[in-house]
Amino acid sequence: MAERINHQWRLVARPVGMIRESDFEWTQEPVPSPGENQVLVRILYLSLDPANRGWVREEGSYMEPIPLGSVMRGVTIGVVEESRHPDFKPGDNVQGFLGWQEYALTDGSTLRKLADNPAIPLTAYLGLFGMIGLTAYFGLLDITDPKAGETLVVSAAAGAVGSITGQIGKIKGCRVVGIAGTEEKCRWIAEELGFDATINYKSEKVREGLKRTCPNGIDIYFDNVGGETLDAVLANINLGARISICGLISQYNATAPVPGPYYFSNILTKRARVQGFIVTDYLRRAPEALSDLTKWYQEGKLKYRVDVVEGLQNAPKAVNKLFEGSNQGKLIIKI
Amino acid sequence: MAERINHQWRLVARPVGMIRESDFEWTQEPVPSPGENQVLVRILYLSLDPANRGWVREEGSYMEPIPLGSVMRGVTIGVVEESRHPDFKPGDNVQGFLGWQEYALTDGSTLRKLADNPAIPLTAYLGLFGMIGLTAYFGLLDITDPKAGETLVVSAAAGAVGSITGQIGKIKGCRVVGIAGTEEKCRWIAEELGFDATINYKSEKVREGLKRTCPNGIDIYFDNVGGETLDAVLANINLGARISICGLISQYNATAPVPGPYYFSNILTKRARVQGFIVTDYLRRAPEALSDLTKWYQEGKLKYRVDVVEGLQNAPKAVNKLFEGSNQGKLIIKI
Repeated sequence: MAERINHQWRLVARPVGMIRESDFEWTQEPVPSPGENQVLVRILYLSLDPANRGWVREEGSYMEPIPLGSVMRGVTIGVVEESRHPDFKPGDNVQGFLGWQEYALTDGSTLRKLADNPAIPLTAYLGLFGMIGLTAYFGLLDITDPKAGETLVVSAAAGAVGSITGQIGKIKGCRVVGIAGTEEKCRWIAEELGFDATINYKSEKVREGLKRTCPNGIDIYFDNVGGETLDAVLANINLGARISICGLISQYNATAPVPGPYYFSNILTKRARVQGFIVTDYLRRAPEALSDLTKWYQEGKLKYRVDVVEGLQNAPKAVNKLFEGSNQGKLIIKI
Repeated sequence: MAERINHQWRLVARPVGMIRESDFEWTQEPVPSPGENQVLVRILYLSLDPANRGWVREEGSYMEPIPLGSVMRGVTIGVVEESRHPDFKPGDNVQGFLGWQEYALTDGSTLRKLADNPAIPLTAYLGLFGMIGLTAYFGLLDITDPKAGETLVVSAAAGAVGSITGQIGKIKGCRVVGIAGTEEKCRWIAEELGFDATINYKSEKVREGLKRTCPNGIDIYFDNVGGETLDAVLANINLGARISICGLISQYNATAPVPGPYYFSNILTKRARVQGFIVTDYLRRAPEALSDLTKWYQEGKLKYRVDVVEGLQNAPKAVNKLFEGSNQGKLIIKI
């Protein structure tokens, strides 16, 4: 058998501002063979996420920074090709942090076997039934405790997390307002997902949009973006508002310190609660979320879409779609 | 009987920046007589508090703004002189929002009778056994849930609220670090109140002081000041930190929008919780706090001091001591 080649993207420079292809090097090496207790996985799908931008910073964010010269970190779905590990056998579909490459050798410690459910496409494990779904579920329900009749605002509402968050808000009886950056996205979340109102921040000031769509103020804000949007929300919160800080994508590419919200003092006067979270703190509670998400999905109450880009070579360019807002649903590389 | 005169300070202009005496007018009118179900109170003590600055803004803060021409709002202790109200009789000591004046007529709805306890001086009802003590108690215990061994940082630590908050933190087993603005204040909170470490922000950068005094990071921050101090704390918080926003005195006199903390993103990466509160939301739970505070006071675990300024005429000048940091303990006007 001819020697097989594993292509990889390695981080070779710390990005300044947007990620450039030149921050990575396209390398290749022979596909390795598993040693004892090791598994060789052929990677099928790579998830691209806003958190990737934090991982390449020198200071890191959530996780240790990725050392220069290493294969870029990433959440992946793959299939076991060879195994000398008792828990995995060839053909098993698995999820893990295997990085921006075609093959990976692993000791299995971060690998999770995926249920063999023909009704669920593999890519859904990078979205609704993966970190994305868990993020929306716990970030909304655990952090903000939404009550029927409350007004919930979601930013990046057509994004992978935001679109699921808004739908869970609807399931819980909230009035849901989504902020997105194109007419197409606004139409999708309103007409397909059932959001009550939308704000296209490219065609309307968010502050004015919130006044228009939230005449009774804002009880809950699920924040994916930070920056001016967070400020506009803080200016309109009700007493006892809860703000779940899921992401601050507007400032991930910042090259200078970014001031916090000018309406920070409303946290005091409105007795609001602002809480950051990360989905990995909730992994032990994943079963309760997956049970609800599966039920809601089968009842037709949860919809999602994926934006699949073909070819690992395109990963460094494709990741910036997240920061430009040009992806339509969960951004995935098909390898 | 000669007609008695009631002197009053009325708000006549909205302060810009620091409060000026010219924002008030010194007026007088005959002392009124109570009608049916009314009480006439002679005011003995007037509490001056940072919140006063918010009440004179056009937008208000917590409470409705004080209309121009009205007697300035303030928490007071007084004695009932005449009563046509079934719940009050002459000689009763009472607390209420009776304002910057010598006498007040009231329907009794906001009046609270004070226990007749010779061990507790009347001024303590404006401090340890009043709003101040309740603010420290609930703002620390209910909002941040401190655990023994955690590091608690308190700003304005020699102030009325901060000094009690730090002592409650010690009672709960925390390592307590206080930030204050003079050597005398730092000495007082360390030597008399038992704080573990202090930072004099006039002689040391808070950021460096926190590195020096909190080598294991900050678990809890009780914030009375906001601004750069909050930012320095956010730069040093631990995973799961809780921040109780009690006050933002550094920006109450601001004449232009103030940016929020530049380290706001640490709320996300450290999964921190930031929560604003106001003591009036806790008044129904006052008995549980007063029971603990009384017990701790009698055990010698809680000390407090008052800064008494003589004469209602001095109120507009004296209130700025709070913003200059020149008061030594709870600031009170003796009338």
